[in-house]
Amino acid sequence: MISIIFLGTGGGAPSKYRKLPAVFVRVEGVGILLDAGEGVQERLSEASISPMDIDVLAISHMHGDHVLGVTGLLETMGLLGRKKELVIIGPRTIQDFIESSSSGTFFKPQFDIRFQSSLETKEFSITPFPTCHTIESQGYIIRTRDKIKIDINKAKELGISDWNLFRKIKTGYHADISPSTVEYITYKIKGISIAYTGDTRYCSEVLQNVKGVNLLIHDSTFLDEETAAEFGHSTSRDAAKAALNASVGMLALIHISSRYHDTTPLLTEAKRIFPRTILPEDLSKLVFK
Amino acid sequence: MISIIFLGTGGGAPSKYRKLPAVFVRVEGVGILLDAGEGVQERLSEASISPMDIDVLAISHMHGDHVLGVTGLLETMGLLGRKKELVIIGPRTIQDFIESSSSGTFFKPQFDIRFQSSLETKEFSITPFPTCHTIESQGYIIRTRDKIKIDINKAKELGISDWNLFRKIKTGYHADISPSTVEYITYKIKGISIAYTGDTRYCSEVLQNVKGVNLLIHDSTFLDEETAAEFGHSTSRDAAKAALNASVGMLALIHISSRYHDTTPLLTEAKRIFPRTILPEDLSKLVFK
Repeated sequence: MISIIFLGTGGGAPSKYRKLPAVFVRVEGVGILLDAGEGVQERLSEASISPMDIDVLAISHMHGDHVLGVTGLLETMGLLGRKKELVIIGPRTIQDFIESSSSGTFFKPQFDIRFQSSLETKEFSITPFPTCHTIESQGYIIRTRDKIKIDINKAKELGISDWNLFRKIKTGYHADISPSTVEYITYKIKGISIAYTGDTRYCSEVLQNVKGVNLLIHDSTFLDEETAAEFGHSTSRDAAKAALNASVGMLALIHISSRYHDTTPLLTEAKRIFPRTILPEDLSKLVFK
Repeated sequence: MISIIFLGTGGGAPSKYRKLPAVFVRVEGVGILLDAGEGVQERLSEASISPMDIDVLAISHMHGDHVLGVTGLLETMGLLGRKKELVIIGPRTIQDFIESSSSGTFFKPQFDIRFQSSLETKEFSITPFPTCHTIESQGYIIRTRDKIKIDINKAKELGISDWNLFRKIKTGYHADISPSTVEYITYKIKGISIAYTGDTRYCSEVLQNVKGVNLLIHDSTFLDEETAAEFGHSTSRDAAKAALNASVGMLALIHISSRYHDTTPLLTEAKRIFPRTILPEDLSKLVFK
């Protein structure tokens, strides 16, 4: 299961309606924060998520609207007495930025911070992919692993009822039983995958990487193509084209410019190209099972 | 006239009730922001104050809860196309912090930033004074100048009715008229003064400097003396003692720890010592004429 809470769906500057970029994802009990714009700790509180629930912070790029909430968030983790390690994934300069901003504000975290370029666990992976913005930027794919399930009726049919053996089969270890039997009594539940682009133009690097994901969370800053191109962003039509051409399951439009109070035109234009599109409000939630 | 809008009256971490430190002061048409905790641009928007209305930013010290909103605020000023110069007053390292945080987020302001240690205009002054915290810190006194007014009836009595002469007298230039006549036909309206301590223990440095101000905005983080002493803060009793011993006109308690949802005990304890005490909510306003 992957649950997604859109903490901030705006971009550039916060508006009354949409705050700065941050998406909280919970996958197999692990909390992942994608980007941390200024005010993210207020959004977490509004969504009843403790900063202690964040295990991984993944930053897409170093523009202020995506990263200026990081230091305050770390400082609040410190005030709350955090001891648990925090994994941070991000562009090359994220470590320097955090260290300089922390030392500039006399903050020394009492918990370990581990900087990584990706994450692999038994249950899921977080993989960066390049996006096309005005500075170095990357999106993330979060993918749960396929699960092997036992068809109990078929197993019974063959006289197999040993739960220890079932457990071994599920984890891929089945030396005591033939592959054809395993194949007969098992079935696979495909993992879930979501992709978060951060800021990007429509580009083939993104398309290639997000192919077939269940949910694509895509930059949709503007309606106007020229403005989008000038600032390295996408229109909602660009996002819908990406969703269509990458054959994703569902599209969520985010990073909406503060100039749009009424977002109906953005959503309408995208849905014309890719009907399974949503434009989430701040603090709205999606669950994929 | 000085108007004061308490944008954020909490401290340390934002709570549901009180956000991070920021006080907006308007004096003689000039906008002054005292401290800029994370989220300050959202508070400004909630108070219907444009970032463009800020002419002076005065930072008390470099702890994150007072300063982590600065870069985002500057970036939004940039997005809004600001050209007007911004004056920044603060601790020695504020310039390095802003430069490093801006370059780390690829932000180059298109407006001038002038770093100063104080400000003097024809109408008012902003003067820092040392406070007693765990790191180098300073408070600010904002003081409007005394104004000379003409008693028109007394002037008429002496047959004086030249408005040019009145203007000269008001600005302190009166070569054409005797000092005793000036004294007879004029009266003085005393300037208004407010003091903002930022974070501080109760200490004599503060007392000496805030003596007699119309309004003292004082650290009042805790109820408990030991905790206050440990973290270089004041209890609400400390703030009230400071107000009493410095003979100020009115006391406003701020920097309330997020641990207090009900702030009645803080206010009650302070009022026992100094009855003219208020504990402002976020976004509340005071006007001194």
